[in-house]
This record gives sequence, C-alpha cells and structure tokens, in this order.
Amino acid sequence: MKNKVIVLHRTPVGALSDGDLALKVRDVGELLPGFIRVAVEYISVEPAMRGWVTNRTDYMPRLAPGDTLHAFGIGVVIQSEHAGFTVGQKVIGNLGAQEIADINPEMTELRTALPEPVPSSIQLGMAGITGLTAFFGMTKIARPSVGETFVVSAAAGAVGSVAGQLARLAGCKVIGIAGSDAKSLWLTRELGFDAVINRHSENVKARLDELCPEGIDIYFDNVGGDILDTCLSRLRKGARVVLCGGIATYNATEKPAGPANYFALVHRSALMQGFIVLDYLDEFEPAIEWIMTQYNAGLLINREEMFTGVESLPNALNALFDGSNTGKVLVKT
Amino acid sequence: MKNKVIVLHRTPVGALSDGDLALKVRDVGELLPGFIRVAVEYISVEPAMRGWVTNRTDYMPRLAPGDTLHAFGIGVVIQSEHAGFTVGQKVIGNLGAQEIADINPEMTELRTALPEPVPSSIQLGMAGITGLTAFFGMTKIARPSVGETFVVSAAAGAVGSVAGQLARLAGCKVIGIAGSDAKSLWLTRELGFDAVINRHSENVKARLDELCPEGIDIYFDNVGGDILDTCLSRLRKGARVVLCGGIATYNATEKPAGPANYFALVHRSALMQGFIVLDYLDEFEPAIEWIMTQYNAGLLINREEMFTGVESLPNALNALFDGSNTGKVLVKT
Repeated sequence: MKNKVIVLHRTPVGALSDGDLALKVRDVGELLPGFIRVAVEYISVEPAMRGWVTNRTDYMPRLAPGDTLHAFGIGVVIQSEHAGFTVGQKVIGNLGAQEIADINPEMTELRTALPEPVPSSIQLGMAGITGLTAFFGMTKIARPSVGETFVVSAAAGAVGSVAGQLARLAGCKVIGIAGSDAKSLWLTRELGFDAVINRHSENVKARLDELCPEGIDIYFDNVGGDILDTCLSRLRKGARVVLCGGIATYNATEKPAGPANYFALVHRSALMQGFIVLDYLDEFEPAIEWIMTQYNAGLLINREEMFTGVESLPNALNALFDGSNTGKVLVKT
Repeated sequence: MKNKVIVLHRTPVGALSDGDLALKVRDVGELLPGFIRVAVEYISVEPAMRGWVTNRTDYMPRLAPGDTLHAFGIGVVIQSEHAGFTVGQKVIGNLGAQEIADINPEMTELRTALPEPVPSSIQLGMAGITGLTAFFGMTKIARPSVGETFVVSAAAGAVGSVAGQLARLAGCKVIGIAGSDAKSLWLTRELGFDAVINRHSENVKARLDELCPEGIDIYFDNVGGDILDTCLSRLRKGARVVLCGGIATYNATEKPAGPANYFALVHRSALMQGFIVLDYLDEFEPAIEWIMTQYNAGLLINREEMFTGVESLPNALNALFDGSNTGKVLVKT
C-alpha cells in the first residue's frame, strides 16, 4: 500500500512558493503496536497552517524538513492495534496531510466523528474546528447581545462566515469586511449579513463610519494589520475585540507593526482577547450539538470549496491567502 | 476672596513646557443657585492629566485655552446653595486645579469623604482614585491567583506600588520594573516585592527571563511602549494584561507604534483589557472600605510626595514624567 504525503521541504519565507512543500509517495509499513491506521477522507485547510510550517505557534509540535505537515482531518480506521479503536470507526484529529495516517492515540488527540447521516466534510467545517473556532470566539469572548454592532473581517472565510451568522442569531447588526462583490452578495443575500464592505473597492473607514455611527461593540478579527487598527479606533465603551487570526500578516517576512490604536482599549474600557480553539476541547461535544441543531433547522448555512487529491493541498492553502476562496476550504483525498 | 487657578494656556506639544499652563488669580464672585463652594485641600496629580489637557480622552469634558485644568481633589464645603450639601462637609471629585471651586453637584460627580480620623490626602491616593485604579485593575481584569507571576511597570508610581502590593496580598510572585535603585530598594524592602528591575541600569528582557522562567501570568501596564511589547512576548497561557496607563507615550508628538507582539495574545489565549476607574463608581464604597481595612492593619503601605501651592502643579505634573517621584504625588493648596 502506498501513501501520498505532503512534507515540509524547506521553511517558507513570505508566501508559500513552489518547493516549500513536497509531495512524497511512501510505502505503508507494518502497523506498530498501540497505533491505529486511518484512511483520511477529508483534510481541513486553514490559515493557521502557515504558522505551523514555520513553527510560529507553540500549541502544535515543531516541524523539521521532511516531516509530514500538520493537518486536521477526518477518516476511517482501517486497522487497529489499540484497544480503544475498532475498524470502521470514523475519527477526527491531526491526521496530517496524507492519505493514510498511522496514529498513536495516546500521543495525538482524536475525537469520534458524529454518526450518519452527518456528512464527513461538515465535521471539519461548520461542525468542526472551523465552526468551533467561531463558536468559542463568540461565546467565550465576544458575548454578543441583541442590538449590538458586530464587525467581522475575512467575512466570507470559513470562520468569519460562521461568526457573522452566530452574531446574526444573537440579534446583532452584522457588518462584514470582505474582498469581492461576489462575496458581499453571498453574505448579505444568503447569510443575512446587514452589510458588507468590499475592502478593495470601498473606503473601509468611511463605510464603517456610515454603517456603525455609534461605533463597534464587537470586532471579530481574522486579519490583523490596518483593519484591526481601523476597528480599534471605532470601538464603543465596553467593546470586545476577538483576536482569532491575522491573515494579513502570516506571510510577512519582517515583523509587522502592532496596532497603533491599542490605547483605545483604555479609553473605551474594552478588551482584546486571543484564543486557540483547542483550549475548549472539553466543550466541543455540546458545542457541536448546538451547531448541528441550528444547521439542521436551516439557521446556519455551510459552504465548502473542495480540492481533490493530497497533491492539491499547496494550492488549496494558497487559495486562503490570495482571497479566492469563499467558505471552508477542504481537500478530498 | 481670591482664587488661584491653573488654566490651560495653549495645548502642549510633547512634554509640558513653560507657558502651556498658566496661573491666574481670580476674584471669587457670588455663588450661583444650586452650586456649592469648596475650599480645596489637596489636588491629586496623575499621568492621565496629560491626556486631559490635549482632550485625548472622551471621559472628561473637553478643555479650551483659558479653562481650569481638570483635577481630582478633596476639600471642604464653605458655602452651599444646594440642599444636598452642608457647610463643613468634605467632598471629593473633579474640583479642578484651584483653591476655591464653585461646583454644580448635578453636573460634577462628588463623593462624600470618609470621616475623621482618615486623613484627607490618603483619600486621593491609596484610598482614592489611585488606589481604586489599582484595585479595580486587579480585581476586575488581573484576577490574581496564589502562585502566579505578576509584573508591574512604573512600579514605584502611585498606582503601580498599590497594584504590586495587592498582587503580593493575593499570593503572587511580584516583579516590579522601576527607574532607580532607590525605588527598587523601597519596593523590595518596604512593600515586599520579590524583585525589582531597574530599567535604566539593567537589561529588562534578560532579567525578566531570569525572574519569570515560566513566563508572566499578569502584566499590569502603566507605561506602554517597549516594555509592554517585551512583556507580551513572555506571557503564559491564559495571561491577563491590564492596560492601565501608557506614560511612555503620553508626551509623544508622533503617534507611537503599537505593540508588535500583540499576536502573542492568540498563541497564549491571553487577554489585554483597558479600563477607566470611573467605570466602577458604584463599587467605590466597598472597595475603599476594603483598602482602608488592609491599610489600618498595616498590610498596605501608602507613600506621598507633597508639593505646596496651586502654582506648584505644573512642576508636580512634570515629576510624574521625569521619573523623579515615588508614590502618590499631591499638591497641598
């Protein structure tokens, strides 16, 4: 049996370029005692991966050239040398960017997938790490109230589009910042956003002033950079800034400037808080149940952009950074 | 009757210089209906005043040239045309930088001072806005636990020295950052700080690495600038950064850079929160009672630096910025 694997070839500088990642085809050897073998069905593609390949975070194991890229995925157990897992069981976790994953469940946190008829792919998106990221950012930090003004950047992205929908369900006025008119239309017509600012064709500051005349109660930040600073200067008293991502800076080769308007947090008695979705592992189960209830009732809308084959992962990852994707990006193996 | 008043003469650029503020001697006219006349005893001198004179904040009324400087003070009612106040009563509030204050209590929030034998001056310091600032920063944002590592900048200042003592009472390891060996000695020997870094003669980064080998759980920021950034890069998981002041930047003529390491808040699931002590006006009374209990038991130490005469206020204010003060700076009228 052969396994297609995406490995780190050299540490990228700036945007991922040809040759930073490499496709390897490896023989699958004998399964070690205590391990399970998983046939990966879908791989989740997310901006944080850019940080994992340069070891910029400390919540994922460090990668050296030749190592398989970290990647959350869903797959089926096809062989088990671990008493806790049986063949046919579906699991979710850091299975790596590959077709066949040999996993030691004592070392790698795995969750059991939801039973049929819940589709596999949604368990990496809306009802997976992506949806959970939006959910915990909203419930633990943003804590929205009816009538508050909510702004989200990268609004058409996987996390942003769920965060905006959760804000809408909480009764907020929902303003998105996105990168194309097509995204704006999707967000306002299908997801119920009150307004979306096209950051390429519109003046973000002037539009925010129009759309949020009393300021911003919640800013859900997926981008960092200038847009974070712009929103900081428009906070209302008691505002919350959810630091979720900084896609504007992930590819930076020099250290980006910090948010010069941070002191608005003092004048507005506001908070800015970061989080890692894995902080809330113990609460994943009820959160997923809540998300699926809303989804099944048609109150949350899921959208996926599917790439095919492990070898498509570098392109899928770049799609996150060039602004071409809408919704959750996945690779089907 | 004459009144000495410090007024804004021209909006300062950079550090306060001669001629930005002016001393005026004015006749005290007839007291208007609904007003009370207060003989000011002490004026509280605080870094935030630098922002009030350039209208950089939105929680204090705007100042135009010729207006009396905002200043919290304590004084005795010497005449009353308001049913709620009687002659001889002692009050605290924004009485302005002057000897005699005519106040409309419907427009200016006043508190009744604590009865004898509590000294007047401590009601502007440890048991006043200063101590309350430290208290609410600690109880509402820092929420210290036994055994946590606490770092405070401008540690020998009025707020910093109380915040550090509160952290010590909560069972934290307390590290101060201050500007002289004399301050370091006072903080460690008299206030019980575990260690103090002299930011002029020591390498702050290297010393923090030595003193906080597992990182910082709470950083109480009074300065902003490089020290904020240095502490952000050393946060532990779940850390809290209390944004209390930014004295390093108050005199800046160009917009200072933001904290480039802000994204550590994401990787460490940490929060950074600002506040204005007036947010907690409703809780001042029990907080002051708690502080006085600790003070009377000898568990909190108060230190004052007293200037004499309203005309000394500009020098007193500059003492906050040139690092020459230790403890609470006051003007006795």
